[in-house]
Amino acid sequence: MEFWFTEHHTPGVNFSIKVDRQLFSAQSEIQRIDIFESKDFGRFLAMDGNMMLTEKDEFIYHEMIVHVPMAVHPNVKKVLVIGAGDGGVIRELARYETIEHIDMVEQDELVVEVCKKYLPVTACCLDDKRVEIIYQDELKFVRNCHNEYDLIIVDSTDPFGPAEGLFTKEFYGSCEKALKEDGIMVNQHESAFYNDDAIMMQRIHKRIVESFPISKVYQAHIPTYHSGYWLFGFASKKYHPIKDFSSTRWNARGLHTKYYNTQLHVGAFALPNYIEELLRDVE
Amino acid sequence: MEFWFTEHHTPGVNFSIKVDRQLFSAQSEIQRIDIFESKDFGRFLAMDGNMMLTEKDEFIYHEMIVHVPMAVHPNVKKVLVIGAGDGGVIRELARYETIEHIDMVEQDELVVEVCKKYLPVTACCLDDKRVEIIYQDELKFVRNCHNEYDLIIVDSTDPFGPAEGLFTKEFYGSCEKALKEDGIMVNQHESAFYNDDAIMMQRIHKRIVESFPISKVYQAHIPTYHSGYWLFGFASKKYHPIKDFSSTRWNARGLHTKYYNTQLHVGAFALPNYIEELLRDVE
Repeated sequence: MEFWFTEHHTPGVNFSIKVDRQLFSAQSEIQRIDIFESKDFGRFLAMDGNMMLTEKDEFIYHEMIVHVPMAVHPNVKKVLVIGAGDGGVIRELARYETIEHIDMVEQDELVVEVCKKYLPVTACCLDDKRVEIIYQDELKFVRNCHNEYDLIIVDSTDPFGPAEGLFTKEFYGSCEKALKEDGIMVNQHESAFYNDDAIMMQRIHKRIVESFPISKVYQAHIPTYHSGYWLFGFASKKYHPIKDFSSTRWNARGLHTKYYNTQLHVGAFALPNYIEELLRDVE
Repeated sequence: MEFWFTEHHTPGVNFSIKVDRQLFSAQSEIQRIDIFESKDFGRFLAMDGNMMLTEKDEFIYHEMIVHVPMAVHPNVKKVLVIGAGDGGVIRELARYETIEHIDMVEQDELVVEVCKKYLPVTACCLDDKRVEIIYQDELKFVRNCHNEYDLIIVDSTDPFGPAEGLFTKEFYGSCEKALKEDGIMVNQHESAFYNDDAIMMQRIHKRIVESFPISKVYQAHIPTYHSGYWLFGFASKKYHPIKDFSSTRWNARGLHTKYYNTQLHVGAFALPNYIEELLRDVE
């Protein structure tokens, strides 16, 4: 039997994973949710047919979206996580004993339920005592926050469908207000290799640049995402991602990571010229 | 009509590009050679069914395999290029006026012919006056070279089939002897994300480490190669890729590049922990 999951990275580029079994499939009020089992990537989660995470490479995304800002901000106590129902961001945050409280706002309760059941390695820390899960529209939630968080992590799905509102100027403006005066927002900034992706990424970047005084972009290799190359946005009111980053402070925490390290932290902000040009076009 | 080229990155992972037309197909004495035309990647070259290069992303590979060593060695005059029949490495080398002579040793004359005809942007400089193309078995050629080159670039196909000999300890030893006392060898070091690829990469790395006093690895995102993540080996008798690298000297050359820059040079050597561990295992 040949049983394949295929994602169209463009109408003319497919990435396919041979599937052993489909473990779960349902339509929530918000989106279609599927869990598959495969030899090469272990279990993986797709939402509306788009690859969200695989057991084999999710460490890259989750380490990079969490440890980069955590190595810059010297004193993160209160965090807001947007989306992230799979629990990967929470798992990495939970390793910091100095974090006191995490609000996680997720639209879709079923995502959390399904991930707890089928992706326990990713969802392991969703019951951490410091975590409060709020099932609500993220945009509405953030609109009512003021000067409250040290760090906001926007772990959204793609900028079409249910998460569209999380890529608007209004949303980034609300995040800026929700942060304390030295707060940092990190977001998944999409890919930029294929032309349509690059246009989308530029649109996101422009809006963040308009909302924050410091707005930089960093990169990681994530094999299951478009072109295997993914960007993250680092937006900040005060801290610069390199000048205010302390490798000594982060290394003293003694966290073991599989992707992130403090040399790579600096390297991640050294972007190829073609990406720098795309960013400059909208800055 | 649906017309797709598919490469198996593992038996359970496929990468597929929608093809407009097949422009060329032949079996040389050494390998099967195909040229396709596609919307997303322009023209692309496959050898024995393996993706070699596409017009859209070849700049990444060729810039990274050439400009990294050229920014480290202060005085490259004579270069040996192994393989590279598509001409991409020669194109990037030809931009350095200070290079006096390039020997290019390629097994398969048909590759050069086909690339000149179908991939003119890549093959543009194969007729440069400083370039001598030698159609010969690369292993035999290098065996007879002593203390001759400042730089050797090993732009081979994968370590099975026709290029197998270019991944042996004997070959790396011959390259070491063919280099002057301050010479550098750079090679394509394969990918390391999928398990079988990682084992292969470790085998290559072990052999290079045994042949050179300085042996480092650097990375680039190449969308059409396995997992979109590719490694290069930097092996050297004297120069360290970071300590002996001069950004001022390279930037003074005024070369315009689409991927490489001198910040990225340093960042490319900042590898993820999981790669560092694979390398340490065999060092």
